[in-house]
Amino acid sequence: MNIAERVLKGDRLAAARAITLVESEGPDAVDLLKEIYPHTGRAHRVGITGPPGAGKSTLTGELIKFFRKRDKTVGVLAVDPTSPFSGGALLGDRIRMSDWFTDPGVFIRSMASRGGAGGLAKATQDAADILDALGKDYILIETVGVGQEELDIINISDTTIVVLYPEAGDRIQAMKAGLMEIADVFAVNKSDREGADRLADEIKAMLSLKKDWQGWKPPVLLTQGTVGVGVEALAEAVLSHMRHLASEDILTERRRRGLALKIKTIVDAHVERALWLGEKNRAELGRAADRVAERKETPYDAGVKFIDRLRGR
Amino acid sequence: MNIAERVLKGDRLAAARAITLVESEGPDAVDLLKEIYPHTGRAHRVGITGPPGAGKSTLTGELIKFFRKRDKTVGVLAVDPTSPFSGGALLGDRIRMSDWFTDPGVFIRSMASRGGAGGLAKATQDAADILDALGKDYILIETVGVGQEELDIINISDTTIVVLYPEAGDRIQAMKAGLMEIADVFAVNKSDREGADRLADEIKAMLSLKKDWQGWKPPVLLTQGTVGVGVEALAEAVLSHMRHLASEDILTERRRRGLALKIKTIVDAHVERALWLGEKNRAELGRAADRVAERKETPYDAGVKFIDRLRGR
Repeated sequence: MNIAERVLKGDRLAAARAITLVESEGPDAVDLLKEIYPHTGRAHRVGITGPPGAGKSTLTGELIKFFRKRDKTVGVLAVDPTSPFSGGALLGDRIRMSDWFTDPGVFIRSMASRGGAGGLAKATQDAADILDALGKDYILIETVGVGQEELDIINISDTTIVVLYPEAGDRIQAMKAGLMEIADVFAVNKSDREGADRLADEIKAMLSLKKDWQGWKPPVLLTQGTVGVGVEALAEAVLSHMRHLASEDILTERRRRGLALKIKTIVDAHVERALWLGEKNRAELGRAADRVAERKETPYDAGVKFIDRLRGR
Repeated sequence: MNIAERVLKGDRLAAARAITLVESEGPDAVDLLKEIYPHTGRAHRVGITGPPGAGKSTLTGELIKFFRKRDKTVGVLAVDPTSPFSGGALLGDRIRMSDWFTDPGVFIRSMASRGGAGGLAKATQDAADILDALGKDYILIETVGVGQEELDIINISDTTIVVLYPEAGDRIQAMKAGLMEIADVFAVNKSDREGADRLADEIKAMLSLKKDWQGWKPPVLLTQGTVGVGVEALAEAVLSHMRHLASEDILTERRRRGLALKIKTIVDAHVERALWLGEKNRAELGRAADRVAERKETPYDAGVKFIDRLRGR
């Protein structure tokens, strides 16, 4: 049996190897993904995002517990966008998930970013496909909220939970930057801290300004992941959103949008390789940089010249 | 006089307008940049990066003070990569720079990210060109250290200062992720805190493992930005690195690399627009997503088909 066949039989070791393959982006990975692809689309994919220190991993652990009690299987992808500085605290948090390492109904994997734009989002989506083909009922995708790449990752999820906690910075930031667009469920975690109710009220006030929710208004839930408070309501909100997606046929459209982005990423990567992998264009780029460095032409003229040359003009 | 001419005459309002133009990426921006470009390359560009909370803005303020005392003019670009969650604390820190808002020898501007990969780096580089043409002697580019885009930004600087502070996460993270590659000067800020000496020693130990420094070994300096301790040594390290770059002709090669990346970004943006701005390819992408959503083909097949169609096969 090849790796894809073993994944489809539920072989965890094969799944682990398959994810390593898609992370390394080799040609074998594409063959594997083609083979498993017809067997995907069954799992519900839940994105869990928010700032460092919000307690995402703890809540993820609690969600695993909730689903396991109901005999559902769970895959977890812990995504860590490359950053020279991203907090080491994450490691500590994630160790709490180790309770589940020996449960065959739970598969946990860290994904780290390498390489270009969209690369992490694509690898994460591929890994989710693998866990889907492996037969997991729920796939929890935990990410740290940073930058554009993060927003791409949100396109992978059927349901997105945004986790915030009562700190001055969050309150300000919750107001801006498209959070209202991406959250299907808000968790105000560490709700025993001062300011939790106020933060929840502010989010609700912001939500009330938006008109079109396609029939779904994101609930704002108070949680304390470390002691399990509010976790049941959070999980029920996910299930409720899942039913909403199915009943309104929104799921199809939402996944279609995610797939369009995935195909675009694949096309863009092809184009990038075709442009820059060869010696010829890179040498030309070097010569253009020389001319610009000598201030003989501007970077803009050099760029246009380059494009014209590509077009054979 | 057009905006470019006014910038070259040292008109601050014109510079502010010019930066707004390059942020919005209009065609006027390209004309303006072409006009000022021959007059750039004189300023020394200093990148200041590090995790949120390291005290970068305070140190930036102290560096402004240092240069102003020596009658040098200073431009500051405070770069904030778009993040739904990036700390609100930044705002608070940056208010400290307002001491300088009334000094005509200092120009301060915030840059926020919008749009695609490389977009912020390109706009920041353009803004630095504008401040260079405006006649500023030093351009301080302060960025928060997150993700790939951050690493692009480092290519804009002649000298890069990495600011860390004594926290467990940093110590772990300082070990990895290319920090050794990008730093020309290390500042261990908040050096009155416990663990500062240990952090400095660890960085030095890491540095000692690397052989090739092109004749420059990054100094590791203890600073307390809030009380000005170590700031003079930090500024002197920047000046010393500047002399090193000039004497060894490394500056030319370094800027040439940055320019090559800039031209590449311009070419990539052209290609992206040519591919996706028109209706035709977007409609085809939609149809491909439909086929994939129905599991008639895989995203990989759809991507390859798309490429083949682009090539006219």
